[in-house]
Amino acid sequence: MAYRAGIVGASGYGGVELVRLLSAHPAIEMSVIAAHAQAGEPVSTLFPNLAGDRRFDAIDTDQLAELDVVFLAAPHGPALELGAALHDAGTKVVDLSAAFRLSADGFATWYGEVHPRPDLAAGDDAHLTTVAYGLPELDRGASRAAIRDATLVANPGCYPTSALLSLAPLMDHVVPGSVVVDGKSGTSGAGRAAKDHLHFAHVDGDLTAYGAPAHRHTGEIERWLPGESGPISFTPHLVPMPRGLLTTAYAALQEGVSAADVDGALHAAYDHEPFVHVLPAGSFPHTKALAGSNGCQLSAVVDPRTRRVVVTSAIDNLGKGAAGQALQNANLLLDLDETTGLSAIGMYP
Amino acid sequence: MAYRAGIVGASGYGGVELVRLLSAHPAIEMSVIAAHAQAGEPVSTLFPNLAGDRRFDAIDTDQLAELDVVFLAAPHGPALELGAALHDAGTKVVDLSAAFRLSADGFATWYGEVHPRPDLAAGDDAHLTTVAYGLPELDRGASRAAIRDATLVANPGCYPTSALLSLAPLMDHVVPGSVVVDGKSGTSGAGRAAKDHLHFAHVDGDLTAYGAPAHRHTGEIERWLPGESGPISFTPHLVPMPRGLLTTAYAALQEGVSAADVDGALHAAYDHEPFVHVLPAGSFPHTKALAGSNGCQLSAVVDPRTRRVVVTSAIDNLGKGAAGQALQNANLLLDLDETTGLSAIGMYP
Amino acid sequence: MAYRAGIVGASGYGGVELVRLLSAHPAIEMSVIAAHAQAGEPVSTLFPNLAGDRRFDAIDTDQLAELDVVFLAAPHGPALELGAALHDAGTKVVDLSAAFRLSADGFATWYGEVHPRPDLAAGDDAHLTTVAYGLPELDRGASRAAIRDATLVANPGCYPTSALLSLAPLMDHVVPGSVVVDGKSGTSGAGRAAKDHLHFAHVDGDLTAYGAPAHRHTGEIERWLPGESGPISFTPHLVPMPRGLLTTAYAALQEGVSAADVDGALHAAYDHEPFVHVLPAGSFPHTKALAGSNGCQLSAVVDPRTRRVVVTSAIDNLGKGAAGQALQNANLLLDLDETTGLSAIGMYP
Amino acid sequence: MAYRAGIVGASGYGGVELVRLLSAHPAIEMSVIAAHAQAGEPVSTLFPNLAGDRRFDAIDTDQLAELDVVFLAAPHGPALELGAALHDAGTKVVDLSAAFRLSADGFATWYGEVHPRPDLAAGDDAHLTTVAYGLPELDRGASRAAIRDATLVANPGCYPTSALLSLAPLMDHVVPGSVVVDGKSGTSGAGRAAKDHLHFAHVDGDLTAYGAPAHRHTGEIERWLPGESGPISFTPHLVPMPRGLLTTAYAALQEGVSAADVDGALHAAYDHEPFVHVLPAGSFPHTKALAGSNGCQLSAVVDPRTRRVVVTSAIDNLGKGAAGQALQNANLLLDLDETTGLSAIGMYP
Repeated sequence: MAYRAGIVGASGYGGVELVRLLSAHPAIEMSVIAAHAQAGEPVSTLFPNLAGDRRFDAIDTDQLAELDVVFLAAPHGPALELGAALHDAGTKVVDLSAAFRLSADGFATWYGEVHPRPDLAAGDDAHLTTVAYGLPELDRGASRAAIRDATLVANPGCYPTSALLSLAPLMDHVVPGSVVVDGKSGTSGAGRAAKDHLHFAHVDGDLTAYGAPAHRHTGEIERWLPGESGPISFTPHLVPMPRGLLTTAYAALQEGVSAADVDGALHAAYDHEPFVHVLPAGSFPHTKALAGSNGCQLSAVVDPRTRRVVVTSAIDNLGKGAAGQALQNANLLLDLDETTGLSAIGMYP
Repeated sequence: MAYRAGIVGASGYGGVELVRLLSAHPAIEMSVIAAHAQAGEPVSTLFPNLAGDRRFDAIDTDQLAELDVVFLAAPHGPALELGAALHDAGTKVVDLSAAFRLSADGFATWYGEVHPRPDLAAGDDAHLTTVAYGLPELDRGASRAAIRDATLVANPGCYPTSALLSLAPLMDHVVPGSVVVDGKSGTSGAGRAAKDHLHFAHVDGDLTAYGAPAHRHTGEIERWLPGESGPISFTPHLVPMPRGLLTTAYAALQEGVSAADVDGALHAAYDHEPFVHVLPAGSFPHTKALAGSNGCQLSAVVDPRTRRVVVTSAIDNLGKGAAGQALQNANLLLDLDETTGLSAIGMYP
Repeated sequence: MAYRAGIVGASGYGGVELVRLLSAHPAIEMSVIAAHAQAGEPVSTLFPNLAGDRRFDAIDTDQLAELDVVFLAAPHGPALELGAALHDAGTKVVDLSAAFRLSADGFATWYGEVHPRPDLAAGDDAHLTTVAYGLPELDRGASRAAIRDATLVANPGCYPTSALLSLAPLMDHVVPGSVVVDGKSGTSGAGRAAKDHLHFAHVDGDLTAYGAPAHRHTGEIERWLPGESGPISFTPHLVPMPRGLLTTAYAALQEGVSAADVDGALHAAYDHEPFVHVLPAGSFPHTKALAGSNGCQLSAVVDPRTRRVVVTSAIDNLGKGAAGQALQNANLLLDLDETTGLSAIGMYP
Repeated sequence: MAYRAGIVGASGYGGVELVRLLSAHPAIEMSVIAAHAQAGEPVSTLFPNLAGDRRFDAIDTDQLAELDVVFLAAPHGPALELGAALHDAGTKVVDLSAAFRLSADGFATWYGEVHPRPDLAAGDDAHLTTVAYGLPELDRGASRAAIRDATLVANPGCYPTSALLSLAPLMDHVVPGSVVVDGKSGTSGAGRAAKDHLHFAHVDGDLTAYGAPAHRHTGEIERWLPGESGPISFTPHLVPMPRGLLTTAYAALQEGVSAADVDGALHAAYDHEPFVHVLPAGSFPHTKALAGSNGCQLSAVVDPRTRRVVVTSAIDNLGKGAAGQALQNANLLLDLDETTGLSAIGMYP
């Protein structure tokens, strides 16, 4: 194997999906599979798909700093500390938490904490060269140059990934302040910890909204939408399925913008992208089609009555919404082909 | 039993739910359980919950006209004909289809057909006394007087029921043209017929939008929203659960309208309603809580950043969204207590 | 209301199902809804289907002893103590736990504890007149006389209910020692507490066995099968559905026993029972058909190649498998019609 | 690519899973993706996970005969004809249907048809050198030599795969005539065609048995169990999950056989197998752990009371139960490493 990687927080769903993906990666070896609370336990205890005797490692910063790339799949608290330490040591890091996605001000607003390292907050990107927001397809793909040159990549949130892919190419055509994003996610997005509201008997057959009107991903979407989006409305919902995420984005079109303009903008943005597929008008993306893959499917309709564009976009929240995208970013950081280890087709049915 | 009822279209999900509800009704007897294609077959062949030897009846208009009330749970084509015939014979009818919900013009626009009996189109309600739109809680409950006096009641669609209950009390406070309704429904809303896209192996784990931007329920919501709503955006989604429907409605608030105004309007509209429950701020309705019941749970949040109100509302699409509401309307037509046979609590878990 | 009831352990699934059923019971009023850990909390916090302001009561034995009937839906530990105290006070009790289902010896074997009140252990039934095992249909219905005369009823477990209804009428025809029961249950059978293995993301799409070869219900089935069953094999499985339970029972037939004999025995046992329905040969029971009801559907096939009978039986584990049956027993204890408040048809789909 | 393959019947679930697996195979190219009724349609119309413009091919026997290997994922009718023609042309074939799994007599018994080519019926294996039953792990792995040398491989059924892997190593220890296999499968096992009983609204929340006591897989299990099993009882069930299959096998142990003997036999059979994992006593296999993989997890418990062994075994019915195993067999036919393209870990959650 050409490269040695570590995963921190491997006991969570983002972490174990990284383990699954890296198991099939031809150029990256998993040297460290660390989990704070589970160190020493067999991985198979938590994840019966991972047979064998491998045990969770303890978290050892010095050991991690020697690796070629470290994936942080921990909460933003420990990630802030560990990400900064590894960055300062020059180790390449992909952080799946929200620790470095926003500006220091945005972090204070949406997470209610003073950012301990404003110099590493990706949202203040004017002055940053070693930190990048890890959505390679953003800005018609220009974003990937910054990722390639970075040391630390702030891997986007699941809802922002889907919403930004839907809206970014269209923001030139959209009336500021008109954006509404209705998000729906499978339950793995809520994490592995056993909680009352995640009990099978409560989730099965149930649909509910949560977190509105100030879910933290709202600030991330606003920060990374190109141009002046104005404040957006974002309402997430919990859907009775283990994986999959769909956003339905509504925006008022500026005068004179046609359905063909919308279509053209999406195709210009994604026709050369390996992971983002624009479906023909009248087709709607299915979350199930992306299960286990790093793909995104999206389609747009323009309503002549309301003059709004409606973009629906589907991803696997653990794939393009977390671990898949993290691996895509790691491939960029390591100068590998961006699609290495990510060509799996969605599992269907 | 005080009254004799007939169900036409009893082989569909709306019909069989009526059978289930009427089986427990103390004052209405099911004299006729008719289904065109299944006439003569045992009811238990289609619906294993309905044990016993009862068979589907054939549809006989003369026989139906002798009953105290007829529920039409058939498609709008046959319902147009049968509903008009029974109305003209003076028989009380609750029609669960879209046949009589819109004005004749609206019907032409959204259903692409000339309405054969514009004099019975509930949407042209200025001149109607024998036809009513059957959402009793509409217009702060004023709607139920019209229902009580009617001969034919056009039972609302599932999405319109949820959306109208969410928005109607707030329309005085809302900016025209700003309304977005994002709808999510369990699969029973798509009917009983076996189709590829309703196969368990395709639906399970899947979420998808459909029908945007011109789903027919859009016109029904616009028609019955009080005041000038302007055109609304409506996108329905198919959720992997058999029952349950949730709408998330977004609307820009007029200047000066506060969260307390919104809260006050909802409580004024529903505090005396037996079936509509306003949840406290910060609570979100769960579809599962309403399974099998005629209830609706809703809650509103106001986002100070975007100045939008977001109302989420949950019903059982076969309960308050179809059969439950039809029975509520029948109770009104027959001068029974409105809640008779409808007091069941949702089945949970 | 004619009678006043109390529910202890109302925060569990058996308890809340009792609340749902009793809400619609015409002759029993819920005077006490008690839950140890949740006393003082609104019931709606745990169970969103139960809107309103009612709060869980504390457990007060003296207060409970004044009631006409008390349902114990608590674990067998507290139930042993509370059940004995109420019994001694002469209060009618239906206990949903395993506290009084076995003989004192059986309790020691299967639960590993010395029974504190062997005089109340239903399994030692030769000498008991005030305690009964609460499966009314057992022994061709003879069991219900004992229930009517009892003070304390030991409500059967979910798997034993289904297995005993399947096999009891056939034991005269069966080879001792040949019985295998393969059980499958929805997750509500595992209780309301949030646990890793009940997380939606783990249960959805998963099927697993558990507890073999010595699940505690094995002893209960053996104890109450008529005649000499010999030791039986019982393996329970967890199925990805919130409710519903199905058992598949296999037994070798004695020489000369025909399919007609099997059919005859089942019809003789159940044709006059209101809740147990024998399906025609070639039909198999569906758990979904019983959701929310107190019914049981079963059917038998005889395999001429192996000379085994295979009986499949479906119930709602919270209905006939717990709360429904408890109410059936309470109706018997209170000399009400046995079906009062239990006529609901399964919710389908 | 080293080898060129064809898939016939690619519009079914077994076929599309082959497409998914072969897409990631490093040495086999999909030259033909044929489907009779869908020839000319885009593959993505049926399977939204397979984006792109590829269309289903027509079935052309001459073209198929030129390929290195052909997978037949069609019903046994067309497979009988096509399989024989390709075999006679010397083309390597893996047939996923039941066409060649039984002896000619067995085929007549269980499928009610005269086998048109008894010389190719794998069940009459004494005289066969060009046809093999494709369960490589059978007979402690001896089976794979026959597969390597064959021209046509009869790929096992899903239930037989799981049941045979559970029981084959134990048959020396088992009392003839005592075997009971209780099978449970996700709905993809019932095929892609839209049928009433596969409707999401009917399957969700439902569990039912079917096909007992004479499901066709019974004969296949009996045929390939080593030694004298005697007739077995087999009851399949439909479980509300799209993929996954679990069998629970019961058998009486001969006198003197210990739990250690059972454990030893299973470990001797599978410790060197790449796809079959024996779990430690007390652990039970989970279907979800195998989703999308070619693995099998199994575990055995011995009940000292009944002297029965109970073996539970889980596979993905489309993986080791169909397409995965077919690819494993193709690797053997082509002298590739048996695990090529099959190392994927189950998708979890």
